[in-house]
Amino acid sequence: MSEKVLQYLKDNRERNLKKLNEFLSIPSVSTDSVHKTHVEEAAAFLISYLNDIGFSNVETVETDGHPLVYAVYDQAGEDAPTVLFYGHYDVQPVDPIEQWESDPFQPVVRDGRLFARGSSDDKGQVFMQLAVFEAFMKTEGKLPVNVKVCIEGEEEIGSENLYTILHDKKELFAADFAVISDSGMVAKNQPTILYGLKGFTGIELIVHGPDHDLHSGMYGGAAKNPIMALSHILASMKNNEEVITVEGFYDGVEPLSAEERELIKQVPGEDYVQSTGIPETVSEKGYTAKEHTMARPTFEVNGIYGGYQGEGTKTIIPASATAKITCRLVPGQDPETIQDLLESHIKKVSPAGVTVEVKKEKLSAKAYKVEPNHPLIKKAAESYTQAFGKETVYVRMGGSIPVVEWIEAIYQIPIVLLGFGTPDDRLHSPNESFPLDSFDKGMETLVYYWNAVHA
Amino acid sequence: MSEKVLQYLKDNRERNLKKLNEFLSIPSVSTDSVHKTHVEEAAAFLISYLNDIGFSNVETVETDGHPLVYAVYDQAGEDAPTVLFYGHYDVQPVDPIEQWESDPFQPVVRDGRLFARGSSDDKGQVFMQLAVFEAFMKTEGKLPVNVKVCIEGEEEIGSENLYTILHDKKELFAADFAVISDSGMVAKNQPTILYGLKGFTGIELIVHGPDHDLHSGMYGGAAKNPIMALSHILASMKNNEEVITVEGFYDGVEPLSAEERELIKQVPGEDYVQSTGIPETVSEKGYTAKEHTMARPTFEVNGIYGGYQGEGTKTIIPASATAKITCRLVPGQDPETIQDLLESHIKKVSPAGVTVEVKKEKLSAKAYKVEPNHPLIKKAAESYTQAFGKETVYVRMGGSIPVVEWIEAIYQIPIVLLGFGTPDDRLHSPNESFPLDSFDKGMETLVYYWNAVHA
Repeated sequence: MSEKVLQYLKDNRERNLKKLNEFLSIPSVSTDSVHKTHVEEAAAFLISYLNDIGFSNVETVETDGHPLVYAVYDQAGEDAPTVLFYGHYDVQPVDPIEQWESDPFQPVVRDGRLFARGSSDDKGQVFMQLAVFEAFMKTEGKLPVNVKVCIEGEEEIGSENLYTILHDKKELFAADFAVISDSGMVAKNQPTILYGLKGFTGIELIVHGPDHDLHSGMYGGAAKNPIMALSHILASMKNNEEVITVEGFYDGVEPLSAEERELIKQVPGEDYVQSTGIPETVSEKGYTAKEHTMARPTFEVNGIYGGYQGEGTKTIIPASATAKITCRLVPGQDPETIQDLLESHIKKVSPAGVTVEVKKEKLSAKAYKVEPNHPLIKKAAESYTQAFGKETVYVRMGGSIPVVEWIEAIYQIPIVLLGFGTPDDRLHSPNESFPLDSFDKGMETLVYYWNAVHA
Repeated sequence: MSEKVLQYLKDNRERNLKKLNEFLSIPSVSTDSVHKTHVEEAAAFLISYLNDIGFSNVETVETDGHPLVYAVYDQAGEDAPTVLFYGHYDVQPVDPIEQWESDPFQPVVRDGRLFARGSSDDKGQVFMQLAVFEAFMKTEGKLPVNVKVCIEGEEEIGSENLYTILHDKKELFAADFAVISDSGMVAKNQPTILYGLKGFTGIELIVHGPDHDLHSGMYGGAAKNPIMALSHILASMKNNEEVITVEGFYDGVEPLSAEERELIKQVPGEDYVQSTGIPETVSEKGYTAKEHTMARPTFEVNGIYGGYQGEGTKTIIPASATAKITCRLVPGQDPETIQDLLESHIKKVSPAGVTVEVKKEKLSAKAYKVEPNHPLIKKAAESYTQAFGKETVYVRMGGSIPVVEWIEAIYQIPIVLLGFGTPDDRLHSPNESFPLDSFDKGMETLVYYWNAVHA
């Protein structure tokens, strides 16, 4: 059943690449209002493509920001499942532009990679999905699954409007499961199932001391130093064995099973020392660096500041000191509960002579995890292997994709992350690219997968 | 013997104030090269004045920066002691100029205070010394003491050239004791003997982690966070009872005697909560805030920075984090030894996964302390009381005046700090001023003092 579709994709490879280049040439940078018309142009490209393929209800859903592209296909038959397909057509800014070796919006192939902003994140992967749907329609006259398409234009600026739409227009997106192609594989041509993502929450901690900077000679010994107070508070929150020492932080965290540790062990590891220049890896006591990054919660101070930062010396006791803190969460942890625990801990350990202020980050997300042996996941793994000729590895990721958590929370459906990016794609950086191998074998994977899901 | 001199000062009050205003009108800002000729003009004013009074060897000593004004008086007789008088004729910049209520270089009297940059720090106090010498010459025909004058033009920029001159031209400045009028009283019209100053040293501590900022989702759990490492290091250096926990830090520090605690108790105290807005004072366990600020060493982080400081959230593990640290030292502590102790401690507690870099501050100073009952001090206290009609209090100060330590180290002579400033003088700030009470009674104090010293 897949042969004709695959042959069609082979025969139309040049045409598809040309069409993809047309899509990538539109500078749909969502964060910059000068690109507003370009963002609309990218949405119009998708609307036109979806109409050509034969989707119905093709429309843009207007938001307070950039429009969302919506479409439906419901001719797969009553016994076929309905999939919600999510992707995004907006891209990151291109700065620093001078570091690009070719124009970010004039796609070009070098060394088997397609270089363009959005080639991997996420226009390239969105295009692959649509090209595969087109191939099914052109060869089989129908798709193996019913589809609801949801392609937003605000992923790179936080997806706030998407959140509202998913909530308010729930009926538009009702489906049996969701598929998202906005992630990657652990290595080029290494089939990868991403079965877990971490959640996310954060706070800003401000320690206030005197109402202005004080002369350290006149007041040193009378006024508590806010930087020292902050250091003590932070040091009390995570020890040097990387164990988070905030009471209740690990409550509800499920232990890492022997089975899962084995899965993690099989993932080809990044040489962290080589790629980051750190002297050695450091991870939570009792866990390897891979286990900690993938499957254990983290507590990181992303920024700290207070007092004098210039050349030389300024002998002051500063008025305040601030730390920006974020945590990556695992299943069993609730972002708001974690914020409350952090706040309680801070208030408890805050020393005399200063006052503490805790600002809670608004956007947060729970962790996401699907059973690695869920049938929809197993089928994805088999499809990957069939296309790439290699065993699929199962990974959990330290990062967070808020939309995944939202879809799970609102629709309570399984989510399959079918991503084909590679670690070398330079997302968000100059010279973003996507391997043509991923383009070809990724589409092959999708063909196998939609057929497998239908069966 | 003092009456005629005092009468002369009374009779010439207006003339002296007019002449002081002429001196204060010269914008001798040492830090700004556009004022180079003004600095030279201020030096020339002093040269001319010293010649008029009748000093010999009046000359400018050229330096790599601004010149030093030198003069000698050696006609007091063989039995009279020789005093080294130190002051400075350069002033701080005037920014922010818009906050001045009158032109900083057009002296004006309001509410019994003379407003002008340098009125208190230090041109006003230098002028008082010279005016008193002039009064002695005009009335008695001679000074009660032999004098070596050393008035520099680089105090506000670190006195580096002075340090070299004091070292290299030692014979020029040889004296029996030194007098410095570049400090203040604890309250207006409250005679104050400053018998101790703290020393000073500093380091910059940089914690290095990865060679670039890392994505906290991908590397949280593998890479040690430099901010957390820095927080642990700092927290290990001073506890929340304000005890410095660096091994050897207090070695050699003499215990605070019951007698000295009593002296400190008698000093009119500043209401720290009122003046700084802190919730409460916090000081070293076992010591009051006054005792700690005046007589116990301190360890302060003057600034800290690392990672993201902007709006909102950036989920990174930063490449590095930096703390700027200074310590105020008391007698018995050597600045370089303290730097070494800090460095050893940091290296010992530095956690795995990061490297630490310690940069040692070059300019540092030992503490200065003179016996409160040294005859030269007792005479100063008595002269103060005679002029101001009030008991003199004895204070040690948390601040540092490097030249005091240099003079002591190089010449090993007693140093008497005869200052007449008040806490409201706004040194280094807009609207610097000096009370006319201090001008009149300060000169009276000096007349009594020189006569007492001669006796």
